[in-house]
Amino acid sequence: MSVIVWWLVTVVLVAVHSASARVVELDWEVEYKFWWPDCKEGIVMAINGQFPGPTIDAVAGDIVIIHLTNKLSTEGVVIHWHGIRQRGTPWSDGAAGVTQCPINPGETFTYNFTVDKPGTHFYHGHYGMQRSAGLYGMMIVRAPKEKLRYDGEFNLLLSDWWHQSTHSQELALSSSPMRWIGEPQSLLINGRGQFNCSQAAYLSNEEGKRQCTFRKNDQCAPETLRIRPNKVYRLRIASTTALASLNLAVEGHKLEVVEADGNYVKPFTVDDIDIYSGETYSVLLRTHSSPTKKHFISVGVRGRKPNTTQALTVLSYVDAPESARPTLPPPVTPRWDDYNRSISFSNKFFAAKGYPPPPEKSDEQLYLLNTQNLIDGHTKWAINNVSLSVTATPYIGAIRYGLSSLSYLKSPAKELVESYDITKPPVNPTTTKSSGIYKFPMGIVVDVILQNANVLKGKISEIHPWHLHGHDFWVLGYGDGKFRPGVDEKKYNLKNPPLRNTVALYPFGWTALRFVTDNPGVWFFHCHIEPHLHMGMGVVFAEGVDRIAKMDIPDEVLGCGLTRKWLMNRGRH
Amino acid sequence: MSVIVWWLVTVVLVAVHSASARVVELDWEVEYKFWWPDCKEGIVMAINGQFPGPTIDAVAGDIVIIHLTNKLSTEGVVIHWHGIRQRGTPWSDGAAGVTQCPINPGETFTYNFTVDKPGTHFYHGHYGMQRSAGLYGMMIVRAPKEKLRYDGEFNLLLSDWWHQSTHSQELALSSSPMRWIGEPQSLLINGRGQFNCSQAAYLSNEEGKRQCTFRKNDQCAPETLRIRPNKVYRLRIASTTALASLNLAVEGHKLEVVEADGNYVKPFTVDDIDIYSGETYSVLLRTHSSPTKKHFISVGVRGRKPNTTQALTVLSYVDAPESARPTLPPPVTPRWDDYNRSISFSNKFFAAKGYPPPPEKSDEQLYLLNTQNLIDGHTKWAINNVSLSVTATPYIGAIRYGLSSLSYLKSPAKELVESYDITKPPVNPTTTKSSGIYKFPMGIVVDVILQNANVLKGKISEIHPWHLHGHDFWVLGYGDGKFRPGVDEKKYNLKNPPLRNTVALYPFGWTALRFVTDNPGVWFFHCHIEPHLHMGMGVVFAEGVDRIAKMDIPDEVLGCGLTRKWLMNRGRH
Repeated sequence: MSVIVWWLVTVVLVAVHSASARVVELDWEVEYKFWWPDCKEGIVMAINGQFPGPTIDAVAGDIVIIHLTNKLSTEGVVIHWHGIRQRGTPWSDGAAGVTQCPINPGETFTYNFTVDKPGTHFYHGHYGMQRSAGLYGMMIVRAPKEKLRYDGEFNLLLSDWWHQSTHSQELALSSSPMRWIGEPQSLLINGRGQFNCSQAAYLSNEEGKRQCTFRKNDQCAPETLRIRPNKVYRLRIASTTALASLNLAVEGHKLEVVEADGNYVKPFTVDDIDIYSGETYSVLLRTHSSPTKKHFISVGVRGRKPNTTQALTVLSYVDAPESARPTLPPPVTPRWDDYNRSISFSNKFFAAKGYPPPPEKSDEQLYLLNTQNLIDGHTKWAINNVSLSVTATPYIGAIRYGLSSLSYLKSPAKELVESYDITKPPVNPTTTKSSGIYKFPMGIVVDVILQNANVLKGKISEIHPWHLHGHDFWVLGYGDGKFRPGVDEKKYNLKNPPLRNTVALYPFGWTALRFVTDNPGVWFFHCHIEPHLHMGMGVVFAEGVDRIAKMDIPDEVLGCGLTRKWLMNRGRH
Repeated sequence: MSVIVWWLVTVVLVAVHSASARVVELDWEVEYKFWWPDCKEGIVMAINGQFPGPTIDAVAGDIVIIHLTNKLSTEGVVIHWHGIRQRGTPWSDGAAGVTQCPINPGETFTYNFTVDKPGTHFYHGHYGMQRSAGLYGMMIVRAPKEKLRYDGEFNLLLSDWWHQSTHSQELALSSSPMRWIGEPQSLLINGRGQFNCSQAAYLSNEEGKRQCTFRKNDQCAPETLRIRPNKVYRLRIASTTALASLNLAVEGHKLEVVEADGNYVKPFTVDDIDIYSGETYSVLLRTHSSPTKKHFISVGVRGRKPNTTQALTVLSYVDAPESARPTLPPPVTPRWDDYNRSISFSNKFFAAKGYPPPPEKSDEQLYLLNTQNLIDGHTKWAINNVSLSVTATPYIGAIRYGLSSLSYLKSPAKELVESYDITKPPVNPTTTKSSGIYKFPMGIVVDVILQNANVLKGKISEIHPWHLHGHDFWVLGYGDGKFRPGVDEKKYNLKNPPLRNTVALYPFGWTALRFVTDNPGVWFFHCHIEPHLHMGMGVVFAEGVDRIAKMDIPDEVLGCGLTRKWLMNRGRH
């Protein structure tokens, strides 16, 4: 098997499976519920009364149909299927204002798409800050014939949690002066965390927290991962945090990274993994031969000065007594600002054997300068000096019917890029709002160079995990400082770069990625930190505008803004 | 003047004014803002950055055009013009789900209606519990030639305020078991109250509250009503409370009631007035000859066991020094459960001279039994044993295009009414949801008998102020206990009953009202207590269904639910 191009085999197997594609059809209702995610009562966005939402379990080639009913009182809702490329169904991507209108209260919208590729994915709200409100869940797409060998698997969906409502957070971020939401109160593993106590207090008094005690059905009680000795387990890990960059480690166990964002990677073994919002991983964990121990799995914050306790859950060998506790403290999260360690982890990723290399050259290079700016005293994030403001008419509809003058952007002029000092606050912090749309023809190779810079004040630059809808892309490389055209391209990995849909942009650095415009549609490309997106940190790629203009987009996708008006008057045109 | 039928004169004057009707055209943006309504920071729904929203000042006959832009993040919005009958423009009534679709974020909807009758009105949100979130303001419609004589006027918009967000309140009320929102934290006069201090603490230590001190621009600092001696002032008072029934008094001054809900009443003088949510009054206040005093105006809770401090504001004679304080304590609010006093106040209302009497007989009698019930453990209010659930398709559009099978209701069978014991909790508390729609032909006289009853537990019956859209109605009478057909009608005031749009239904009692179906449209009729409406306490009157079916309703009113679908496919029909 190792010499066979298993990647091709997988493609063929999916194709075979597709011929007899299963349909996974689900009825979902979204509503608020009182919940105790971190042992303190709050309000979550639940699906069918569950938080996190139900796990979707499908096989590559399956058709997934979700009838999503909005049971909220006054709010619209959508769900984005993070990691699904939506080939042929760009209107099912679930990005409000980009690929569809928000679903009104009391109404039902049907998502219908094919999951064409095996992988570990998740889904989440993509309207306002509804993801941070708890609208998320796992989505597993299995290979018809899995090439990885393991004896069992667990899902670990990681998130962060605030006690301030997301409505209040949205207002705070939009206020002048901006009020920052601060670090999360808790980290959650599969929707469970502990705010006011620690599972590991008995091992250390340093935290000054009391020991947690749980009753059986406590919504904040951690799950126990029950394992058997001498086996291999696949941990499917996804981060849907609103803000936090995370690090996960399992006490006493190494992790072999085998999948990232739904793509197999060249396996490598580490003590812990960094995971940014929007990323997913599969790691293989080999269990010990000793059968009676418990071990902490710890998840901590990196990339921002942490003010949030680690989330913990317990790995329990099957014979360990119910009452036993882990004997060793949870792994310590590596220093938050050791970015060399972070970059070193990122640089361990290579595509698994069998993936074809990327095209050798690109047809277009898009330089995206990430800056923090001001509009009338409101703090904003801007890309190439425009801050994203999504229009009330979905982009896909505006393009389909040629309705609104979405302004198409270009990279800023070379001189501008050359003169911008990324190591200092912006000289002129004033920026403007825009639809942030970039247009690409079909069938070309695009390089995007994300360029980080200093924020408005101080000597600070932040991490931004950028997520592209509708595509995987090759991560060609990371660099420190300002990207040097003609020089830094030479360091690109063009042999076996990993395919991802989310990639980190490190402080004061650049990240280069490449993709092929082979999926007509309108694709959001944005920082996956939800408050950053709320403050304008994103762009939109319109891919194959002429193809979009001929698409048979279902009317119910476009029932708002100018497209609603157009469709209502269609008979009169 | 007193012998002339001034009512007719007013009608003629309005008609004359209409010929040269002014247009009051306003651009409004709705958004959340941080605010300090009661000296504690909260979040309000502001219009153009103001809370309460701007006062509309128009003259009878004017055309009011409001371009309402929704600047919220994920929530729809509408505004109801409380007291405006919307003759010929029922789609401008602003009741979400009944007369229009909610306006989506980022979109603008234009309300366009004529204010055909002078009066003291207000406007407010009518979607979810957005009224309670602070979406309200005054609307004054002046007579072209005012028959009342006064030297100055003040607006007093009364409301109640919670520290829990309305989103959280909506969820609490909808939860199983229901969590009651409790009494308001504060009462507000023109959006200003004090939670943690008292303006009158220096006069009494009983409350145990500290003395308020205000800085000049404090959002919670009370307004001072500056008056001159030996004058007459018109106080225009409106209650937009979510819950509280109020009583207002001015220390040392009598109040002459002259207007109720935009209709002149036979003047009568009292020490204080009761005012229920949805009601408006004008009272004339004659000032003393002593020029240097300050007096408290107090607003307190009645009708529910109060747990909220009085709201206070100051009436200041023009020569009173800035630093002076009222020398006498604020008036004490009458005992909350002295319902005889309340009914006695209601019974003081008669139409002013000149109003024609109501038709002598009614063509239809609608009996509406008000009960508290359960649906799957959720506490609901029900009318004739169905709990209102507004559909996702606006009623007016469903009727216009004959789209959905809105079930038309009838009064419950006579036997059912006869057998129901209103003095005890319901024997069978289970109820069902319904569109709650009653159909009336044009040109008939309808009597509605509102019948109160015992709630789910205990020996309790609550006050419900019922508000009818699209109409004024005659209040024919109030009674204790169960309405006795053939007996109680004989006690109706058919000579000079007051015209109102809101009327109280007292505990364990009945209230009878009469109106003429002369305004084709779909009109909400509901308890104006917002949590009660949220829990299903309302019905909808479809008036002149055949006329609605021919109406030229603007498409933008109907851009949701089944009407959106219908209008998008219109060209294909």
